[in-house]
Amino acid sequence: MTRQPNLLEIDGQRLWASIMRSGEIGVGRPGGLKRVALCDADKQMRDEFVAWCKAAGLSVEIDRIGNIFARRRGRENHLPPVAIGSHLDTQVAGGKYDGILGVLGGLEAIRTLNDANVETRRPLELICWTNEEGARFPPAMLASGVFAGVYDLDWALNVADDDGIRLGDELKRLGYMGDKPVGNRPYDAYFELHIEQGPILDKQRVPVGIVTGGYAARGMHVDVRGECAHTGPTPMDLRRNALVGAAMLAVAVNDIGWKYHPTEGKATAARLVCWPNKAGILPDYAQLTCDVRHADMAVADQMWAEVHAAMADAARRAQVEMGVAASWSFGAEKFDPACIGNIRDAAQALGVPAIDMLSQAGHDAYYVSRVAPTAMIFTPCRDGISHNEKEHTELADSAPGVNVLLHAVLARANR
Amino acid sequence: MTRQPNLLEIDGQRLWASIMRSGEIGVGRPGGLKRVALCDADKQMRDEFVAWCKAAGLSVEIDRIGNIFARRRGRENHLPPVAIGSHLDTQVAGGKYDGILGVLGGLEAIRTLNDANVETRRPLELICWTNEEGARFPPAMLASGVFAGVYDLDWALNVADDDGIRLGDELKRLGYMGDKPVGNRPYDAYFELHIEQGPILDKQRVPVGIVTGGYAARGMHVDVRGECAHTGPTPMDLRRNALVGAAMLAVAVNDIGWKYHPTEGKATAARLVCWPNKAGILPDYAQLTCDVRHADMAVADQMWAEVHAAMADAARRAQVEMGVAASWSFGAEKFDPACIGNIRDAAQALGVPAIDMLSQAGHDAYYVSRVAPTAMIFTPCRDGISHNEKEHTELADSAPGVNVLLHAVLARANR
Repeated sequence: MTRQPNLLEIDGQRLWASIMRSGEIGVGRPGGLKRVALCDADKQMRDEFVAWCKAAGLSVEIDRIGNIFARRRGRENHLPPVAIGSHLDTQVAGGKYDGILGVLGGLEAIRTLNDANVETRRPLELICWTNEEGARFPPAMLASGVFAGVYDLDWALNVADDDGIRLGDELKRLGYMGDKPVGNRPYDAYFELHIEQGPILDKQRVPVGIVTGGYAARGMHVDVRGECAHTGPTPMDLRRNALVGAAMLAVAVNDIGWKYHPTEGKATAARLVCWPNKAGILPDYAQLTCDVRHADMAVADQMWAEVHAAMADAARRAQVEMGVAASWSFGAEKFDPACIGNIRDAAQALGVPAIDMLSQAGHDAYYVSRVAPTAMIFTPCRDGISHNEKEHTELADSAPGVNVLLHAVLARANR
Repeated sequence: MTRQPNLLEIDGQRLWASIMRSGEIGVGRPGGLKRVALCDADKQMRDEFVAWCKAAGLSVEIDRIGNIFARRRGRENHLPPVAIGSHLDTQVAGGKYDGILGVLGGLEAIRTLNDANVETRRPLELICWTNEEGARFPPAMLASGVFAGVYDLDWALNVADDDGIRLGDELKRLGYMGDKPVGNRPYDAYFELHIEQGPILDKQRVPVGIVTGGYAARGMHVDVRGECAHTGPTPMDLRRNALVGAAMLAVAVNDIGWKYHPTEGKATAARLVCWPNKAGILPDYAQLTCDVRHADMAVADQMWAEVHAAMADAARRAQVEMGVAASWSFGAEKFDPACIGNIRDAAQALGVPAIDMLSQAGHDAYYVSRVAPTAMIFTPCRDGISHNEKEHTELADSAPGVNVLLHAVLARANR
């Protein structure tokens, strides 16, 4: 690949300094972050981010669900902006790069344009979405979901964490319930850069993934209802142990994942709650959270049908009742060909090796793609590890992607 | 069966009024109680019980772990007393009779002796054991365990509930850390009456079970350690999902219960905790609590060996590590032949049908039997349901057992 001469480049050291500063806010397990949405550390990070945006000359607006929009003026400000976004919240046992590289990479792109006195035709807008992880306020991608009309705003503001604290009350407490309406904010395009969170780029030593769409993901919370009874004298045939029903389903879901492993399918049981959850009493309630993911929507649907069949089977075998408490699906979106083209052209111009790929994780970009032309850029992370304090990437592996982001946005904004 | 004439009988209405009063203190689900050890309701119940004991002329002492001892003087007070005991704490979703019938049945026996001006040779002692259920402060039978030298007192006082509140601090807060040493309190005999918590007596329409011993029970907490990772892109073969490992073991334990169901064996998975327990992240930690029970100790040991084999198998299949965090065993005790004889004689004298049986639940009597001659009386409960708000028994089904208790104690105390 040959690189075009004299192309603008980001300041990698500045980018990394910002990311390392973020890595000091809401420290979790050694090396990682525990900065769940709207905790005090999330507010501190937001405050710092807003200050950085203002220092870069951006004007900041906040909508009623706390999404932050930082605008850089263009030559023709009546035109819809080209947006760059991701998130600054993390998992409970999160890393320093998931989401953060996308937001601060976008900021670095803008800082680079500032330094070079580059004015774009269209305005640019840098977005930080609230509660992408959903680790504190499930489901994931909640605020971009409201933005795209997937979820109702009032419903989302009432979503409570494990302690019963409502998202809306936390927004008010932290001063991040803005005055802008959520959604109806037109964009010419939306670009999101993210670490891959999977092993493909790292294994193939390719610095950029051009994300053309997502794996089809189907998930649900399953309510399991049995009957409390003594763990001792109650005969096996009279037991209706909700935990056993949920465990049977968890095992079956995992088995389905293995069945589709040859075609890169995944099926996951990640969460189980149980009541009363005491040694001496059979639980009468459990809730299992599970999902399936596959590149081929038809296969994902087949996997999902198998999960439902396993649910009926587990309910019968454990003599419990099972029902879907909530369900969701995302990721089957295919990204916008023109935006994908912008990324591909930028990679080519920069001489950055890139491969097309699908995302297997959830991203705000899926929901945004329902209201704006969208595409994503992936960068490598070591061994594909993410949602873990060991999540790691080097500047040398991240900078090519951020430069691609810069030039994709620049081309798009000037077209 | 022919009843001997002119035998003393309890006042069933008075007994039932006391039980119904207890049923108003710490109300849980409709019809049931939620009076876990050392909650405010447990203090209220203790206060009321102590007042009832004093009104019955008993002198009350409390030991350093909150066990309550209410003594009725005999003619020869230098002799070790004959004791009657059980517990007043309940499960989170408990019934109105589990434990309570034993304590208040003992009180009713003493009230009956008082009314008839019957003085016994040996003193009597009515005992309320702290935290029998272990629902709040695991393990079960904690305070009788300390009494019998199974557990260390300081260790037990430091046991914390789910909120980190220590048992010793709650005893102090509620005024129930007494000044008497725990244990070294000799008894001539110990009798415990309890609802069966299983279906045998109810099904056979027999009012009294003479409990000759317990099922051998083996239990443990299993720590499962995996690795946090993203639930989406992480390939199945790279996953180390602690929840899946724990679920595999829960299912295997349940299968072992079914395997031994033909000989009335039981195996139980009743509790599972998981961390971080969020939809988007594979959990790196889980803890499963499980146990097995069988009448034949050798079979219980075989079941336990199968659980350990299943643990190794689940660890391998889920690519996680599993280890025993804590373990316990109880119930293999055989009760004292002379005390069993006292119960059998009393049933015969009263013309009350009775069958010999083993207990399948945990009871303070097991630990007490290590330091005093002990036996138990079972009474029916509807459909064998217990640890459930539907737990139910009628006075007509309970009174025969309490009369048997009265006469077993009377004979023992006068021998």
